[in-house]
Amino acid sequence: MAIADRLKLDDKGLLGVIVQDCATREVLMFAHANPEAVEKTLSTGKAHYWSRSRKKLWLKGESSGHTQAVKEILIDCDGDCLIYRVEQKGGACHEGYRSCFFRRLEPSGGVEVVLKRVFDPKDVY
Amino acid sequence: MAIADRLKLDDKGLLGVIVQDCATREVLMFAHANPEAVEKTLSTGKAHYWSRSRKKLWLKGESSGHTQAVKEILIDCDGDCLIYRVEQKGGACHEGYRSCFFRRLEPSGGVEVVLKRVFDPKDVY
Repeated sequence: MAIADRLKLDDKGLLGVIVQDCATREVLMFAHANPEAVEKTLSTGKAHYWSRSRKKLWLKGESSGHTQAVKEILIDCDGDCLIYRVEQKGGACHEGYRSCFFRRLEPSGGVEVVLKRVFDPKDVY
Repeated sequence: MAIADRLKLDDKGLLGVIVQDCATREVLMFAHANPEAVEKTLSTGKAHYWSRSRKKLWLKGESSGHTQAVKEILIDCDGDCLIYRVEQKGGACHEGYRSCFFRRLEPSGGVEVVLKRVFDPKDVY
């Protein structure tokens, strides 16, 4: 079966991608992909996504150097969400954290930062 | 700040939720929530979502008994995706697996089942 036939796309032609550290299982980020991005990821071993803001194929790390070597892709029961299991160079988050999920949401509506910065965004972007 | 003001919703009024085992960090499922579902989750400690197929608030496990005790919620840099860190009773997947991500996607387009069933869906649903 072609890869594209495995993927159940939303009304914008995309599916969700959860990005997970292949060793620690930490969730690093969440992004979207189209079939071309998934095929590119599988053929190159480097994480590709669809950038919804820039409306183009996006090689993660193309400007920051913080690339992701993809070791394994898992697909969910519905075929509408993937996990990329990756080795992350630097940090996944444009705000300088290893993971985009660096804040805990409290019942009060407050947030608490639970990670430390691993780079200064001013040096990278 | 009210919880709803923290959340960046899509054009359907929803945001994505990654569900992760709080101990092993295994990703169990991906679902969607509206602000009411997030507030209910924080106030009850049980995972609530928005069911896009049934178009209603959904308490995970309401029919299967496979509830999720939510220990922590993380929010990403953009505010448009959450992680629920949970203790999962039984399995998260309606197909009988602990995780919905029980298949590896191969470069050939094939899939390989990488988990064992933990319950028989016929007994539960």
